[in-house]
Amino acid sequence: MTPVPIDLNADLGEGFGRWTLTDDEQLLSVVTSANVACGFHAGDAVTMRRVCELAAARGVRIGAQVSYRDLAGFGRRAMDVPAAELAAEVAYQIGALEVFARAAGSRVSYVKPHGALYNRVVRDAEQAAAVVDGVLLAGRTLPVLGLPGSRLHEAAAAAGLPVVAEAFGDRAYRADGSLLPRGREGAVVTDPDEVVERSVSMARSGVVTAHCGSSVAVRARSLCLHGDTPGAVDLARRVRERLEASGVRVEAFA
Amino acid sequence: MTPVPIDLNADLGEGFGRWTLTDDEQLLSVVTSANVACGFHAGDAVTMRRVCELAAARGVRIGAQVSYRDLAGFGRRAMDVPAAELAAEVAYQIGALEVFARAAGSRVSYVKPHGALYNRVVRDAEQAAAVVDGVLLAGRTLPVLGLPGSRLHEAAAAAGLPVVAEAFGDRAYRADGSLLPRGREGAVVTDPDEVVERSVSMARSGVVTAHCGSSVAVRARSLCLHGDTPGAVDLARRVRERLEASGVRVEAFA
Amino acid sequence: MTPVPIDLNADLGEGFGRWTLTDDEQLLSVVTSANVACGFHAGDAVTMRRVCELAAARGVRIGAQVSYRDLAGFGRRAMDVPAAELAAEVAYQIGALEVFARAAGSRVSYVKPHGALYNRVVRDAEQAAAVVDGVLLAGRTLPVLGLPGSRLHEAAAAAGLPVVAEAFGDRAYRADGSLLPRGREGAVVTDPDEVVERSVSMARSGVVTAHCGSSVAVRARSLCLHGDTPGAVDLARRVRERLEASGVRVEAFA
Amino acid sequence: MTPVPIDLNADLGEGFGRWTLTDDEQLLSVVTSANVACGFHAGDAVTMRRVCELAAARGVRIGAQVSYRDLAGFGRRAMDVPAAELAAEVAYQIGALEVFARAAGSRVSYVKPHGALYNRVVRDAEQAAAVVDGVLLAGRTLPVLGLPGSRLHEAAAAAGLPVVAEAFGDRAYRADGSLLPRGREGAVVTDPDEVVERSVSMARSGVVTAHCGSSVAVRARSLCLHGDTPGAVDLARRVRERLEASGVRVEAFA
Repeated sequence: MTPVPIDLNADLGEGFGRWTLTDDEQLLSVVTSANVACGFHAGDAVTMRRVCELAAARGVRIGAQVSYRDLAGFGRRAMDVPAAELAAEVAYQIGALEVFARAAGSRVSYVKPHGALYNRVVRDAEQAAAVVDGVLLAGRTLPVLGLPGSRLHEAAAAAGLPVVAEAFGDRAYRADGSLLPRGREGAVVTDPDEVVERSVSMARSGVVTAHCGSSVAVRARSLCLHGDTPGAVDLARRVRERLEASGVRVEAFA
Repeated sequence: MTPVPIDLNADLGEGFGRWTLTDDEQLLSVVTSANVACGFHAGDAVTMRRVCELAAARGVRIGAQVSYRDLAGFGRRAMDVPAAELAAEVAYQIGALEVFARAAGSRVSYVKPHGALYNRVVRDAEQAAAVVDGVLLAGRTLPVLGLPGSRLHEAAAAAGLPVVAEAFGDRAYRADGSLLPRGREGAVVTDPDEVVERSVSMARSGVVTAHCGSSVAVRARSLCLHGDTPGAVDLARRVRERLEASGVRVEAFA
Repeated sequence: MTPVPIDLNADLGEGFGRWTLTDDEQLLSVVTSANVACGFHAGDAVTMRRVCELAAARGVRIGAQVSYRDLAGFGRRAMDVPAAELAAEVAYQIGALEVFARAAGSRVSYVKPHGALYNRVVRDAEQAAAVVDGVLLAGRTLPVLGLPGSRLHEAAAAAGLPVVAEAFGDRAYRADGSLLPRGREGAVVTDPDEVVERSVSMARSGVVTAHCGSSVAVRARSLCLHGDTPGAVDLARRVRERLEASGVRVEAFA
Repeated sequence: MTPVPIDLNADLGEGFGRWTLTDDEQLLSVVTSANVACGFHAGDAVTMRRVCELAAARGVRIGAQVSYRDLAGFGRRAMDVPAAELAAEVAYQIGALEVFARAAGSRVSYVKPHGALYNRVVRDAEQAAAVVDGVLLAGRTLPVLGLPGSRLHEAAAAAGLPVVAEAFGDRAYRADGSLLPRGREGAVVTDPDEVVERSVSMARSGVVTAHCGSSVAVRARSLCLHGDTPGAVDLARRVRERLEASGVRVEAFA
């Protein structure tokens, strides 16, 4: 069986003003989709512009990494934002990024929630709907990148938006296909060889070994690579190389 | 001589979250152009959305009121922002507003700097050029509303952007056509009758009495109305009524 | 039976930069305790300074109204802030306010959480403990003003901090003494006469009519007056006058 | 001649939330005075607390590194902040830091402006006076660390505050003792050996070679070490070692 192509996405532009977090240039030579921070958890205007230019120059797709408005918490603190506020804030972020994507000769091609918002809309139907409303407000039928089975994907599909499933080579899965929550022992896979092996397994065969030892189906069109740890770029590069060496085509989703 | 039509512009959406400043609904029944705050000195996403919807429903043109990033100072504190940062921040604001203008069935039709930035780009060629770069980054040839003779207008014209001259019925002019700086005695005209009379004079004949008593030519395609003082809406309404009663057509610029 | 004295507290200084919300001067002529916003949901440094000066001049006690860091949401959006961050942020706010209280010849005399944090620490033991840790970090044994029976009061008492119970003349109570949640029909009492009557009843006899019609004991050392609605100052004044006319001594808690 | 003791100061705690900039732990093993960011250009509450604890544990003096309110610009963009606002904002920052210094068993021992504010108050008498007013508002006669001959030092001395002169081993001086402005060729000394040599020369003999080649007197009680460049910690350590090896006592100012 020929494996489907796989997209590689990573969070980029997650600095703010004087601060930087990820090696955007190096990561952009590995990934096919760049989740660009839009100013609410990270991402000042200069950084957004530069990342869009770098991404466009390398043919990397640009996505809006939308977040709660929380610079101090890096968008990692769940917030009870009323739906109307969340929708408008999502649209605001997409619009701001769109300017820089367009100026670079590209465009915003998808939306992916960040951090606590990402986790919240796995189960919170109201905030999931609000994120989708924000995407619709922004006026284009942008694909929504997220966890398969999430409320976000349900809401996006119901609204006629394309959904793109992503998986994590460095996270443990439970037998039902859900992620083992961070904070639980073994939730994060730290051994690079194992991350590579799991990534290839998910991309080639759509299965991975669950935390309990059984096999679990994890079908994804995109793999999320993390860029904010030491060695992250090297690991990302190895994942890509091994995917390609295994006959998996690395390619952005449509 | 038939007077040229005159546009009436005012700052709108200058609240933030729980706070409001102007009576947007009332002002939108008077003006033809709405300078909408974009989040940097005022203007949260919900407010921006609502003002755009109200403006679009009334056929009022939407402009991006771009500012320094300074919520605490309401954009009234001049900042030495490097050109690249300022350009990117201007573009960011225009993009964010564009989403809400478009969702309301309208679009961003012009750009006007706010507060300290407005004053700075009267003389500061570098920041003026940065604002124009920001408009260009945003990707459309948007007219730039501002003071005739300002560095901003020079930079905009040099870049091929349309420029729209505005005048103030409630500000004193010097004999050379420049504004008497705020803080100088008599800089702000507070008598409503006088504001009305000066507005009509500028719109009808392009002249107004200068601070020194002589007549000065002040040709403008737009009059700026202030909306953040008690009685502001009433005064704005009176200005419009008297303009129309004097045979001046009140109409947005092209 | 001679009723115990009652404190009257209200949120003050809830503007930010150009924006104001409450009529601080008028409210300060009514209340005995001022919950001063410390910059996280509202309250710039100039406002904090001015409110402290006004409060000190009138002999009104100054309290730190601590909040989540959320200007855009006015601190009304519950946030999953990790305990260590919340504690440090609470201490930060108290310290900032202390400067202005001291400069005005007064001091910070108590702490009261604001908005979503206030509601959260009624039940959330972890965040309640974090708020108390923040108070302890600030280095003084400040009384904590809040709902009787709340997790906040439990944590404060356990840490050796004095607790001060407050009640609301304009909120409906359930038979168990808890507040009927906002959003439920009848949760907020809007009739001014009824607010006055309920305030006096709680202050004089420690009972009030619950939502279901029965009587419920609501013993409080402080009544919270709201200052951000039209007519708020008049209502506050009437509450105070009627309390005093009923023989209740209006006096700050110790 | 026995050289006077020399203090070594560096900016610390200049991260924000998820972002860090300096290796605070390492720097704290070298310096005698820590200029701790207070939240306006950098420095969240958790970081402030941690840096204060580390500093106190090592006996390093804690100073308030006060700044314009400008996270996006890292306090490097000069702002025309009205005096009353600037004074209040300075006091706010000192108060916030004081809490963490005190909780760590120490206290705020001095004030040093950061970035654009530092440069501005060299010549701007109004902002210099506002900074001093802020220190006075904070209620203690804190020494002000800054450039000798600056307006800031003049204003501080006039107000009865102690002034402490600092010098820079990695900056070029002009023959009149002023700094060659950044941006001018040779303004920053990048060769580590030269930085060490100049630091020792200034500490031992109070003279250094000016940009033009002549000798210039630069008497300082404190040397500023920079911590935000690669190799900064190593260089700081070498400066300290060579100072001590040259018989200079490294010791905080009183």
